[in-house]
Amino acid sequence: MTMTSEIFDKHQAKLQAALDAIRSRGYWSAYAEMPSPKVYGETAAAAGKAAFEAHRGQRFALHQAGTQAWAGAEQSPYGVVLDVHYPVCAVEELIRAGQASMPAWQALGVQGRTGVCVEMLDRLNQHSFEIAHAVMATTGQGWMMAFQAGAAHAQDRGLEAVAYAYREQSLVPADALWEKPQGKNPALRLQKHFEIVGRGVAVVVGCATFPTWNTYPGLFAALATGNAVIVKPHEQAILPTAITVGILRDVLSQAGMNPDLVSLCVPENQETTRVLVTHPAVKSVDFTGGSSFGRWLIDHCRQAQVYAELSGVNTIVIDSTDAYKAMLRNLAFSLSLYSGQMCTTSQLLLVPAGGIETDEGSKSHEQVCADLAAAIDNFLEQPGVALAVLGAIQSPATLARIDQANTGALGTVVRASRALQNPEFPVAAVRTPVLLACDAEAEDHYMQERFGPITFVVKVADTAAGIALAERVVGTHGALTLGVYSTQGPVVDAVTQASWNAKVALSINLTGGVFVNQSSAFSDFHGTGGNPAANASYCDSAFVANRFRVIQRRHHV
Amino acid sequence: MTMTSEIFDKHQAKLQAALDAIRSRGYWSAYAEMPSPKVYGETAAAAGKAAFEAHRGQRFALHQAGTQAWAGAEQSPYGVVLDVHYPVCAVEELIRAGQASMPAWQALGVQGRTGVCVEMLDRLNQHSFEIAHAVMATTGQGWMMAFQAGAAHAQDRGLEAVAYAYREQSLVPADALWEKPQGKNPALRLQKHFEIVGRGVAVVVGCATFPTWNTYPGLFAALATGNAVIVKPHEQAILPTAITVGILRDVLSQAGMNPDLVSLCVPENQETTRVLVTHPAVKSVDFTGGSSFGRWLIDHCRQAQVYAELSGVNTIVIDSTDAYKAMLRNLAFSLSLYSGQMCTTSQLLLVPAGGIETDEGSKSHEQVCADLAAAIDNFLEQPGVALAVLGAIQSPATLARIDQANTGALGTVVRASRALQNPEFPVAAVRTPVLLACDAEAEDHYMQERFGPITFVVKVADTAAGIALAERVVGTHGALTLGVYSTQGPVVDAVTQASWNAKVALSINLTGGVFVNQSSAFSDFHGTGGNPAANASYCDSAFVANRFRVIQRRHHV
Repeated sequence: MTMTSEIFDKHQAKLQAALDAIRSRGYWSAYAEMPSPKVYGETAAAAGKAAFEAHRGQRFALHQAGTQAWAGAEQSPYGVVLDVHYPVCAVEELIRAGQASMPAWQALGVQGRTGVCVEMLDRLNQHSFEIAHAVMATTGQGWMMAFQAGAAHAQDRGLEAVAYAYREQSLVPADALWEKPQGKNPALRLQKHFEIVGRGVAVVVGCATFPTWNTYPGLFAALATGNAVIVKPHEQAILPTAITVGILRDVLSQAGMNPDLVSLCVPENQETTRVLVTHPAVKSVDFTGGSSFGRWLIDHCRQAQVYAELSGVNTIVIDSTDAYKAMLRNLAFSLSLYSGQMCTTSQLLLVPAGGIETDEGSKSHEQVCADLAAAIDNFLEQPGVALAVLGAIQSPATLARIDQANTGALGTVVRASRALQNPEFPVAAVRTPVLLACDAEAEDHYMQERFGPITFVVKVADTAAGIALAERVVGTHGALTLGVYSTQGPVVDAVTQASWNAKVALSINLTGGVFVNQSSAFSDFHGTGGNPAANASYCDSAFVANRFRVIQRRHHV
Repeated sequence: MTMTSEIFDKHQAKLQAALDAIRSRGYWSAYAEMPSPKVYGETAAAAGKAAFEAHRGQRFALHQAGTQAWAGAEQSPYGVVLDVHYPVCAVEELIRAGQASMPAWQALGVQGRTGVCVEMLDRLNQHSFEIAHAVMATTGQGWMMAFQAGAAHAQDRGLEAVAYAYREQSLVPADALWEKPQGKNPALRLQKHFEIVGRGVAVVVGCATFPTWNTYPGLFAALATGNAVIVKPHEQAILPTAITVGILRDVLSQAGMNPDLVSLCVPENQETTRVLVTHPAVKSVDFTGGSSFGRWLIDHCRQAQVYAELSGVNTIVIDSTDAYKAMLRNLAFSLSLYSGQMCTTSQLLLVPAGGIETDEGSKSHEQVCADLAAAIDNFLEQPGVALAVLGAIQSPATLARIDQANTGALGTVVRASRALQNPEFPVAAVRTPVLLACDAEAEDHYMQERFGPITFVVKVADTAAGIALAERVVGTHGALTLGVYSTQGPVVDAVTQASWNAKVALSINLTGGVFVNQSSAFSDFHGTGGNPAANASYCDSAFVANRFRVIQRRHHV
């Protein structure tokens, strides 16, 4: 106990800053997003790369309960040969081991658990280069994104969840003296104790594109509130999760805790995953991925609370702008970043049939299409920039969708996706965005998620029709982001109202260095939990408050 | 707006006291539980009785949207002829009206909504006598319980929910300036706004025995967080809800709000209820009642968050005591109160086969049974006390269960239930508790909820077996309360651990003026949300945090 209370004291300043940040939701970050030697140390980059390389071709030892076999066949989008094998453990054993580790974790109390969680995040931060290489190799992200989103920002999101969990748990008093006056008689007096108890074993199901950023919030929210966590990574992005789990298990051991509190589940097949998530002992499931499996989880994991981020159709209403070039530049970057393989990338740009007013005069729908295509061309002109921003296409399914879009089957091809060669990774599938134009009537084509760098410039009757369409798209198919460009106050107000109705975060007139698909920990709520794209948000009280229960006891004094 | 901000100011002291109370969870109450003229005024009792009487034989006008017909056929357990008819409104109209009223309610903001909610509760408090008479007449509760649980305590529970809702919403800042340093370049600056938006229309489904106490938490939690609420009372306990809804609609009108924010749904038939609760616009359902319909709600209301309090098997482990007589007295009162028709009443008393050690020497299992029977007889000896405490049996189903238990079919009858005559209400079905003895093996008999004054003294091998059985009962069938009597620290510790495992509130050695079935607002968490008897708690953060969503918007500064 002494040890964990020391850990809490060590991290108290950081925790307090995080608590201040979630109270104000202004800018704050605990972990440096630039892979700078000044911050991370002169040898960090080389050491991290070496640590990553050392995993290749090896068994990834985690010393987990019930290890039966070794598996893993990650295919890197960059063609990096990984050949890492991970322990395959019996689900029952992982659950049993997790359950066995929970009482001591509960007994640690809120401060003890919080301190250990922050220590875990600090330790993950020390491994940022190693993790970033693993993220890059498995997801196809460019290096800078892999470092930022995969390491520093993911750690920030984890800390944000820890801060929310700490705040909610801290609001529950440990003890109370209940003293009820009885007129002239002595008061009734009861001593009460309120124990915070985790719900049970938590499962966190990761995705292929953001194996850490989308995993850490649920992982740390569940841990901090007293639960054991089993992480089930996407089969194509196991390594970043395995490194994470390994570090967390080390921290637990060093803190005198049972490392089995956190484990990795590499299932033999999809049936194993289904057995895991529907196990009676599993009380929460965090999931990021497609709506098909997500809906299955919500429908079948009735014993658990499911926190799901699913598919969506992100949309931008373009009405007018006083910064046409900057708008196009902003959109070009946003659509190119990681080849549109972000859950926040816009898929629909709604442009009135009559065109838009800009600081460069009126622009017809066709002109906007052409100018945006040119802006994308322009942005991707330098191969170095293009390769760094686009990364590689993560999955064959996305490649197939791009090919389909390129045929014109889904809409008029304004700008075809092109393959680029990455000299460093010759087999990498690099693709530029495809831009399609279509009429609002072509709902069959655009009104479903087309994950990847596929964007429709939809011709709507007018701005009002665009706003109504945007609200309907988000309300029925979900979205994590909504955007608007307009110089007209009433238009912005109407889109704001639509964002409330459809419950989606709104970005207004982004023309500078912030992009609609970026979500900043401690400030931007990622997902609202109020439309079909997600039933929860990173991070708010609702994301943590139902992960623990308060068990009281009372007796006379 | 001025008006609602004045309402907030008016209630700020009370709100602050409630916020302090939920922070410390010690004793606090906003509404006096004694029906005293000093508190409620010299004329309050007579006026409240008259107001209740005035409803009898009348149409209960609420001026709701879509009123199609009038219905209502409440059968009072006391035989009071009510003959009140309530508006039957088209579900679609109630939902549409509720939706239409939400934007202005949202625009009021947290303080505005909170002020109006506290005003509602104060106004309910002014109608306490009227509501208590309505509760008594419809539920069969004794007068004092009807006044306390049905009026004052229910209002306290409502205020508790308002306080939690206020706290959670207040923790979300309205605005933030996000300013991210860019080294030597100017910082990136975004203005962000965070709007709290209700999930949608809320439905609160009431129960027959506690039509206000179990309704107000969900009703006020949903309202305070920005939602419209449709209350669907039990068909046998409509009047207390109708009075409540009428008062809330009056307060809304007087505050310049649309009264349709709160409405009463008296469905034509059960199918109407199913249509209501599964309507796509309904985003939360609060329910108190049997597990059968409760499970149906959880399984079918997939569009909504369901907060359900269901059946359970409350249990007490009796190991030893240093206050044998006081223990028996405490149990006798607890089992007699409202004839065991409380969701918190103990159904199982687990007593070791070898008996228990007491301050009066060893007592065999048989002796404990006999002594408890005698204690109940003794407690109910005076007819005035008996009638006031027992009240009347609410439903024919409970009467049938008592009759069945009296036959000995479920266990050896230690004390048979007896019918008492209530001179004031000659047709009232008044029944004393039935006490059964059985072996632990007879699980078919005792291991399901037998709602009503039916208690099993179960013979367990020893205390350890009793603790294990208690944990299993609660874990598999649910419970709102667990008790233990023991002079042995290790036994209390073991039961405490069992209470954490099964996630149930524990009362230890209650021998004085507090009873295991009593739950005090602002201090006792009613239900943990962690076992099958309830998936939520009155009241904690989890009960409110997911009833609203935060919708952000951001733009360059």
